Amino acid sequence: MKKSAVVLLSGGLDSTTALYWAKARGYAPVALAVRYGQRHACELRAARAVAKKARAPLHEVVLDLAWLKGSSLVNKALKLPEVAPAQIGAGGVPSTYVPGRNTMFLSLAASLADAIGASAVVIGANALDYSGYPDCRPPFLDAFARVAKLGTKRGSEGGVLKVLAPLLHLDKRGIVRLAAKVGAPLSLTWSCYAGGRRPCGKCDSCQLRAKGFREAGLEDPAL
Amino acid sequence: MKKSAVVLLSGGLDSTTALYWAKARGYAPVALAVRYGQRHACELRAARAVAKKARAPLHEVVLDLAWLKGSSLVNKALKLPEVAPAQIGAGGVPSTYVPGRNTMFLSLAASLADAIGASAVVIGANALDYSGYPDCRPPFLDAFARVAKLGTKRGSEGGVLKVLAPLLHLDKRGIVRLAAKVGAPLSLTWSCYAGGRRPCGKCDSCQLRAKGFREAGLEDPAL
Repeated sequence: MKKSAVVLLSGGLDSTTALYWAKARGYAPVALAVRYGQRHACELRAARAVAKKARAPLHEVVLDLAWLKGSSLVNKALKLPEVAPAQIGAGGVPSTYVPGRNTMFLSLAASLADAIGASAVVIGANALDYSGYPDCRPPFLDAFARVAKLGTKRGSEGGVLKVLAPLLHLDKRGIVRLAAKVGAPLSLTWSCYAGGRRPCGKCDSCQLRAKGFREAGLEDPAL
Repeated sequence: MKKSAVVLLSGGLDSTTALYWAKARGYAPVALAVRYGQRHACELRAARAVAKKARAPLHEVVLDLAWLKGSSLVNKALKLPEVAPAQIGAGGVPSTYVPGRNTMFLSLAASLADAIGASAVVIGANALDYSGYPDCRPPFLDAFARVAKLGTKRGSEGGVLKVLAPLLHLDKRGIVRLAAKVGAPLSLTWSCYAGGRRPCGKCDSCQLRAKGFREAGLEDPAL
C-alpha cells in the first residue's frame, strides 16, 4: 500500500504546492483544512476545490477559539496591515499573527496521522518570503518533529512520522516554480487575507504572491 | 499584576490538583477544558464546578474530530479495557489512547497563553501511575516546552512561557497527598471513564484513583 501523508491545506499557493509536492514524492495525500474564524473563508472553498482536483480525502475541522479575536486575520474589526514588500517580515510579529496557529494545526495533523497510520505530516510553511511569524521558522519545525515522534503511538513505538516542510527554504519565486513543476492547480488557489470577492492586492499575502509570480516570470492564473 | 497560568482542566483528580498547585504557587489560574467527544462528558460538569470553586475563568473548547472514533475513550461502541491494577500501563498503549491528545491540548493551551500573556501552561500529566500513553512521558513534555517557546510570539521574543507538569513524577498516593496539601476540592472531581451516573470502579482511571486514596490512607470524598 502507498504510504500516506496528512497535508495541511489552506487552499492558498503554498499549501497547494505542498500537497502536489507530496503527491509527486509518492505519498497518497490526505488533506486537513482548519476553520478557525479566518476572515478569508474563501480559502476553504479553494481548499475543497484543490482537494477534489488532487483526489485527496479532505478533513475539515472547526476550531472556534474566542481568544484568537486579537488577531487581525480573524477579527474583521481590526485593520489588516499594509506593508511595502521590502518591509514584510522585518517589523517583528505582525497583527495577522494567530497565536500558536501552526502548533495547533500541526498537532491536529499529527493526531490524524496517528489515527490513520500516515507516515508524514506536510505543512507549507516558509521561512524566507514570509510575514515574520515565529511558527514558520526551521527550529520550531524541528522541535515539533520531536513532539510528533514522542507524543504519538506511531512515533513512540518506532514508526515513521515525519514533519515535512518542503517550501521552508524557498523564496516565493521558488515556490511558484515548484508549483509549476509538480503541476499544482494554482488557478484554484486563494491567498488574499482580506476576504473580498477578488484578491485585494494590498495585504502581505497578496503582495508576496504577486512578487513570486513576477520573479518567476509567470502569470498568476487565479487573477 | 499576578502572573497567570493556563491550566488544562478535565475535572478529574489530577488536573484539579494541578490547578490548585498552580494557585498555591502564586499563579492566577485560567482554566481550559476541551470537549473532544469523550464518553465521560460528566468530566466537563466537574471541570465547571472546580473552576467556579477556584474562581478561575474557564474556556471551553470543542474539538470535533471524526478520526478519534478509534479510541475507546470516545467511541461508546468500543469496550473499555478492564485491567488489573498491577497491569495498568504494562501492556503498551491501551485502547483508551486518544491519538495525539496531549499535543492538541497543550497546543490549545499555548495558544491561549500566548493570546492572554500567561507565563505558564500547566498539565496534570503523570508518568508513574498512568495508563501507558506516550504523551504523558517526560521527554514528550520537554519537547513540547521547546515548541511552546519557539512557536509563540511570547516565547520567541524572549518572554517566559513554561510548560509545567507538577504531577509528572508523583504516584497516585503522592497526588492525593498533594491535593490535600493544596486544598483541591476533590469532592467535585470526576475520574471515571465510563460515563455512568456513578463511577464504575472498574476502568483504569477508577482503579488508579482508588489505589491513590487507599495508599494515602484517605477516603475519596467523591464516592
